[in-house]
Amino acid sequence: MHTILTIIVAAGNGTRMGTELPKQFLAIGGEPIVMRTIRSMSASVDRFLTDCSSNVDEQAEASPNVENYVHKIVLVLPASHIPQWRELCDRHRFRIEHTVVAGGETRFHSVRNGLAAAPDADIVLVHDGVRPFADSRVVADVILAARRHGAAVPVVPVVDSLRKLSGTDGDSESVNRSAYRAVQTPQGFRGDLLRKAYGAPYDGRFTDDASVVELTGTGRVVLTEGNTANLKITTPVDLAIAEVLLR
Amino acid sequence: MHTILTIIVAAGNGTRMGTELPKQFLAIGGEPIVMRTIRSMSASVDRFLTDCSSNVDEQAEASPNVENYVHKIVLVLPASHIPQWRELCDRHRFRIEHTVVAGGETRFHSVRNGLAAAPDADIVLVHDGVRPFADSRVVADVILAARRHGAAVPVVPVVDSLRKLSGTDGDSESVNRSAYRAVQTPQGFRGDLLRKAYGAPYDGRFTDDASVVELTGTGRVVLTEGNTANLKITTPVDLAIAEVLLR
Repeated sequence: MHTILTIIVAAGNGTRMGTELPKQFLAIGGEPIVMRTIRSMSASVDRFLTDCSSNVDEQAEASPNVENYVHKIVLVLPASHIPQWRELCDRHRFRIEHTVVAGGETRFHSVRNGLAAAPDADIVLVHDGVRPFADSRVVADVILAARRHGAAVPVVPVVDSLRKLSGTDGDSESVNRSAYRAVQTPQGFRGDLLRKAYGAPYDGRFTDDASVVELTGTGRVVLTEGNTANLKITTPVDLAIAEVLLR
Repeated sequence: MHTILTIIVAAGNGTRMGTELPKQFLAIGGEPIVMRTIRSMSASVDRFLTDCSSNVDEQAEASPNVENYVHKIVLVLPASHIPQWRELCDRHRFRIEHTVVAGGETRFHSVRNGLAAAPDADIVLVHDGVRPFADSRVVADVILAARRHGAAVPVVPVVDSLRKLSGTDGDSESVNRSAYRAVQTPQGFRGDLLRKAYGAPYDGRFTDDASVVELTGTGRVVLTEGNTANLKITTPVDLAIAEVLLR
């Protein structure tokens, strides 16, 4: 039996929202954001496994033999919010199976805790708890690229002009935005590779999981095509946008 | 008499929207986007001039003597869409005074055409036609910083992780997003400085007006604080978001 592990990272306290609830528990469409996130990842991975089963002849090289794959979902929450999450699951009759683990000091520590909950996973997807609109195409591309190359992240073009700060005195310079990509999640990895990367000590330069793999020298990261609708909800405006996207 | 010139650049054909109307003519809140853009810039500059008049004692150094300032608005449109714009102004009884000029081959050429319509402007603001939510605080900061330093652009933090493409074979590397800023408009300039910059020949590396000033060696650009609600409408999702922001 092989395992695809999805780690949903929702260990932040979301202070930018100015609400008492952490942002991942705020409702969109009447349901906490993180429930929709779990639902979309569950559906996307299931669809990937179903599609692989039915295309096993045509895509023999690209598709894993998925007959014996299972999908495990680990949700990383602030320890203090786990009881509230249990109540929310009861109230919303949320039935998608998942394991809850407590987060750590930084995202790095939270992901490491999530990894420990399924130490034999073959493929690991790490996904932001506040990205409820992951779609099956993005997820499938990441899984296949991670399986083949070790590490893959979905990216989209950068819309705004970019400037790079070049000193401490407020100097900056325009840079060519077409040479940059904005990184989304899920970020996908072969399990052995990601566990090796997360075995390294913490480094303040880690920004996302791909940077952990790179800065620890564990592997090279390939880029797949993201989706601009795969929104990360971090402000009240984003929350309003999410309601629009749901319609 | 001194002049603040606002050049509103709406010379694109907005093909990404998949609509017959160019995106700057699509409606939000029942009115073409670019009308709201003109309205917000007109109101913001008027407010700046009013505030300066009433604070002339306290802010003697920071505030210009604005008693004899006027605000001119130039709208740059694709030549083929000017008749349609006239019709829209009639239909919506749009009364804010502005001059319409035809755009050029690139944004650089469009801004140059706009500049030529008020060749004596003391301060020039260049603003995206599809940013209808410029606010008076952002506009005032840009005007004051441009007046003092020559060139100023409003920026906001970069939300997503960033990767930089590092070659032609798909290689990329994670970069520290905290060292980058996303650039909005209006971008503000002293008129003499911007006219000098736009007197230079076109260079494919020009991305925005600040980059023209820098790459031609005309001046240094200072950063002011933007506003994440100062959205650039480029996709159907952005259009839905704009409707939400209007409420």
